[in-house]
Amino acid sequence: MTLPIISIVGKSNTGKTTLIEKLVKELVCRGYSVATIKHDVHGFEIDHEGKDSYRHKEAGAALSIISSPQKIAVIKDVGKDTEIDDIVFNYIDNVDIILTEGYKKHNKPKIEVFRTETCQELLCSEEDNLIAVASESKHDVKAPQFDINDAVEIVEFLEKNFLKKERREHVMLEVDGNIIPHKPFIRDMLVKAIRGMISALKKCENAMDIVIKVKRF
Amino acid sequence: MTLPIISIVGKSNTGKTTLIEKLVKELVCRGYSVATIKHDVHGFEIDHEGKDSYRHKEAGAALSIISSPQKIAVIKDVGKDTEIDDIVFNYIDNVDIILTEGYKKHNKPKIEVFRTETCQELLCSEEDNLIAVASESKHDVKAPQFDINDAVEIVEFLEKNFLKKERREHVMLEVDGNIIPHKPFIRDMLVKAIRGMISALKKCENAMDIVIKVKRF
Repeated sequence: MTLPIISIVGKSNTGKTTLIEKLVKELVCRGYSVATIKHDVHGFEIDHEGKDSYRHKEAGAALSIISSPQKIAVIKDVGKDTEIDDIVFNYIDNVDIILTEGYKKHNKPKIEVFRTETCQELLCSEEDNLIAVASESKHDVKAPQFDINDAVEIVEFLEKNFLKKERREHVMLEVDGNIIPHKPFIRDMLVKAIRGMISALKKCENAMDIVIKVKRF
Repeated sequence: MTLPIISIVGKSNTGKTTLIEKLVKELVCRGYSVATIKHDVHGFEIDHEGKDSYRHKEAGAALSIISSPQKIAVIKDVGKDTEIDDIVFNYIDNVDIILTEGYKKHNKPKIEVFRTETCQELLCSEEDNLIAVASESKHDVKAPQFDINDAVEIVEFLEKNFLKKERREHVMLEVDGNIIPHKPFIRDMLVKAIRGMISALKKCENAMDIVIKVKRF
C-alpha cells in the first residue's frame, strides 16, 4: 500500500469541496482512512469567538491546542506557507490517502474540477501532473475524464492507480527547528544505523515508520 | 532555559481562562513565546459549519488540516485522551512556556484558581504539585498565594522559578504508531549515536533538539 497524496484543484466555485466531500465519503465507505489538507492562501478563521481556546490564541499564544478523548485540535502560527510534504511529516499518520484542496502549483498528482459555468479552460495539463479531470464537459487532454458528480468512478480510478503501489522511504531530519537537507548516501546511512539499533528493541524488530524526537524541556 | 509546563486548574467558572489570558499577555509582553493546551474532557466543537475544512471533516476525514502562510490548523480524531508529554512531543516546538487549562489529575506543576463564590475548598495540595494559588482569599497552604487578578506577580514568580532552569533531555521513540518505552541506558546509547552521526552534517554540529522521521509513503 502506498500513501497517495492527490490534489483536487480548479478555479473558485467549481465544486472542489463538494467533490472532496463525495470522495471522502466513498473512500471511508470502502474502509480507507482519509486525511484532507485545505490550502488557504488568504488566511482563515477557525474556532468560535469566546471559547476558551479562542481566548488563549487571541491573548497571544503562538500555538493553542484543545485535547479531548475524541479529538485534538492544534492552531499554530507559522511564518510562511508550509510544503505539503512537511505537513505530512509533521501532522499526518496512519491514513491510507490524503486529499488536498488547492495546491495547484505543487507537484502532487492532480484532479482538476471544471464547470462550464465558472471555467474557460483547464488550469492544468499533463505537465502539471494532471491525472484526471472531473467535469460536466469533455476536454482535449490525455488524462481520464470523469463526470463531476461521479465519486464512485473516481475512487475506483484512485484505488486502481494509487492505492496499491509500494511505499518509498522518506526521511526528515529536523535540527533545532530547521529541516536539514541530506544526500541519499547520508540518508541511507542514517536510516540503516537507526533501523539497526532499534531492531534490538522489543516490538521494533520489523519497524516500518520510525519517529525519534530528542528535546530538552 | 527550561520548557516549563504549568497547569492552571480549578473548578468550573472560577476564571481559569481569564487568568490564562492575562498570563499569556504578560508573558508575550516580556518576549516569551507561549503555547496553551486546553483539556476538554467532554469533547468540543471547532471550526464553522459550512466551511471547506468543516465539510471535509464532516464527510468522514480522520484528520483535516487547513494551511495558510500565517497559520496552520489540524483537527484529528483520537481514540483516547492524550498525555500532556505526548502532546508536547508531537505538536509543540519553539516556545518558552506551556500553560495548560485543566489536567488537574496529571503531574505537572499546578496553579489553582479559587473564587469564594464558586469554590468551597482547594482541589489540590502540595502532594498534587501545587506551586501557587490565585485567589481572592487566603488559604492554609505552603504554596505562595497571589491575587487572582495579579498576572504580573504570577509571571514574575514563574520567571524566577521555572523559566531559568537547565533543560533535561527527553527522547520519544515511536515505531509504526506505537510509543516504545526504553530504559535510560538504551536512550543514552540511541541519542549519543544519533548526535554523533548528525554532528558530521553541516549546521548540525551543535544540535539541541533533533527530530528524525522515517516514513514510507
